[in-house]
Amino acid sequence: MGALMKQALHGGNIHAAARTLGTNPKRILDLSASINPLGMPQSVRAAITSQLNAAVHYPDPDCVELTQALSAHHAVDPETILCGNGSTELIHLIARTLQPEQVLIPAPTFAEYERAIMASGKQEVRSKKCGTYYFHLTAHDGFRLDPDAFIDAMTKMVSSYSSPITHRSSLSLAFLCNPNNPTGCVIPRDEVLKIAAAAKKLRCYLVVDEAFIDFCPEHSVIDAAARNPYLMVLRSMTKFYALAGIRLGYGVFPPSVVRGIHAIREPWTVSTVAQIAGCAALDDHGYRIKTLSIIAREKQYLEKSLRSLGVPCLPSAANYYLLRLHGADVVVKTLAKTGILIRSCANFRGLDRSYVRIAVRCRRENIRFLKELTRCRP
Amino acid sequence: MGALMKQALHGGNIHAAARTLGTNPKRILDLSASINPLGMPQSVRAAITSQLNAAVHYPDPDCVELTQALSAHHAVDPETILCGNGSTELIHLIARTLQPEQVLIPAPTFAEYERAIMASGKQEVRSKKCGTYYFHLTAHDGFRLDPDAFIDAMTKMVSSYSSPITHRSSLSLAFLCNPNNPTGCVIPRDEVLKIAAAAKKLRCYLVVDEAFIDFCPEHSVIDAAARNPYLMVLRSMTKFYALAGIRLGYGVFPPSVVRGIHAIREPWTVSTVAQIAGCAALDDHGYRIKTLSIIAREKQYLEKSLRSLGVPCLPSAANYYLLRLHGADVVVKTLAKTGILIRSCANFRGLDRSYVRIAVRCRRENIRFLKELTRCRP
Repeated sequence: MGALMKQALHGGNIHAAARTLGTNPKRILDLSASINPLGMPQSVRAAITSQLNAAVHYPDPDCVELTQALSAHHAVDPETILCGNGSTELIHLIARTLQPEQVLIPAPTFAEYERAIMASGKQEVRSKKCGTYYFHLTAHDGFRLDPDAFIDAMTKMVSSYSSPITHRSSLSLAFLCNPNNPTGCVIPRDEVLKIAAAAKKLRCYLVVDEAFIDFCPEHSVIDAAARNPYLMVLRSMTKFYALAGIRLGYGVFPPSVVRGIHAIREPWTVSTVAQIAGCAALDDHGYRIKTLSIIAREKQYLEKSLRSLGVPCLPSAANYYLLRLHGADVVVKTLAKTGILIRSCANFRGLDRSYVRIAVRCRRENIRFLKELTRCRP
Repeated sequence: MGALMKQALHGGNIHAAARTLGTNPKRILDLSASINPLGMPQSVRAAITSQLNAAVHYPDPDCVELTQALSAHHAVDPETILCGNGSTELIHLIARTLQPEQVLIPAPTFAEYERAIMASGKQEVRSKKCGTYYFHLTAHDGFRLDPDAFIDAMTKMVSSYSSPITHRSSLSLAFLCNPNNPTGCVIPRDEVLKIAAAAKKLRCYLVVDEAFIDFCPEHSVIDAAARNPYLMVLRSMTKFYALAGIRLGYGVFPPSVVRGIHAIREPWTVSTVAQIAGCAALDDHGYRIKTLSIIAREKQYLEKSLRSLGVPCLPSAANYYLLRLHGADVVVKTLAKTGILIRSCANFRGLDRSYVRIAVRCRRENIRFLKELTRCRP
């Protein structure tokens, strides 16, 4: 496998691609990571620049100001909110805190859930992957997740463990990514709530990763976490606010999980810069409105253009599309040589090398991509 | 225990102190964290501001540019270098990667070694602290670490484990902090090398945390890590370069540990901002010269002033002092009320409530501290 193909299997590594191509990262058009094409909000840039002096001190380990802003933004109790070095840190902390015996993970979905479980410290899990169940989503119904089937899978998983003596030793955990990465498929809010209610009944922890839900906020269940001691909702600020290099995510957790995470986490993972950026971003209502409007417009344009090229494209609730391409490997490599990165989905469990994921960019960039795509299709 | 005292037990939390005092963090003089009083290098500030656009992308997970700069700076193979979200992340990653059965930790020393071991995922270790041995340093010889006695302690620890079947299950790990935090006592380079050689012979991993060694670089053993598969050397950029809120540390590791850490670590913990800051800081020779000169001058001034106040003060190789004060609790609280934070050492294993740690600041700040100290001593 060539370096470019290897890099296409990990979204967003423009650094490695630039090195391979011998070019400056600035000249690369990155459609492999789904980052807001508007770039970092001007308000965030201004806040970081003017408050940079504060970064000589250790960060506030409790992220008090940011947590209060998030609490007001979502009308959620600040005691239930934890911030992280991206939502990825929180995924890993959940895995290490709960150390589940059984895990249910949809396929395809974001690979870091499985990685976090594997890395979570239990040698048995790490080496044998025991207790990891996959809930397969299929192409023929657009990778839609059927809530009743998912509840059945959770029920089977929970009851598969033969009569545990302690509650701790039979801990179960299920992940949902909503909208799902890389399919863009959203589970409607009422269906997520149905799954969450079943999880509570089964005493199975449920993580709903809403990393891309800012693009369809009506489906968020972040308000429901307060009423369900088994529900955790994760959010990311790296995609919608283009803060991927700043690193910021957060989540709403049951009190017991908050305590468990506090007991094992490092004290200063959320940098002062990230805390400043988060507060400024939450305040920037104008940026949110503009983003939603531009992404909606560009999605229409992309869908129409891809249709006219005969490229099948799943409906997406987020700012990316899962595409099926003939000769996808060649397309990925050929585009990379022109400085355009798209995400090969060959290493997503449940997908194959014919799938790629592309981010929605601004018009000029979408045109550049479509032009090169037209040129390089075999 | 009042809020101010509680905060004094955790260095550097100016945010919590400011909230308690109802003041702006900017008005607080923080001697509780040992940060360079020159503040962030101007070169770092300029680099962050001009390259902030790069932070819309995910950080380079391999920190290639920074690693190459560190490799050149220390004349160390880049393959052996790992960067972290502060050296604290690396301490936790070492604990989780090695999952040692026996650990040797000096007392007093930086509390995060013990915390990382406790959080490293093994329930047995976490709950029973089994296998954690403390090497007690004593006030009567200035908390000096005797290398032969430390080697004896390592030897006893390693041989205490009864005939392991696998190498893995009997893994031993020892920590050294050099210069030691909070005593400021340095172990001369030849003595650290002697301990490292013994560790290699015993197959006991040794972490030498050189977070403050920029103030006495002649004692660093970072060059020796390449020749010793059991030696790990950690460095911090948060103290010397005043990047505490940016978060940046690094270390030199044996190849097997590098692989182990890669297998479990999160991909993007070192932010783009931290990578930019690190490259700029390493380039700033002038800032290093100026820092060493000012800190040397201010240490002389502080030592002389404390002596004239009759406050016993240990010699320090770093930018902080361990002091013994009558009525230390009252002093800590009284100073806090005037906006000056010093670090109570009551919660350092091996110390008691009569000890405090103070950072070396610039002349104006040192004068303010000494004036208030004179005023509030009981």
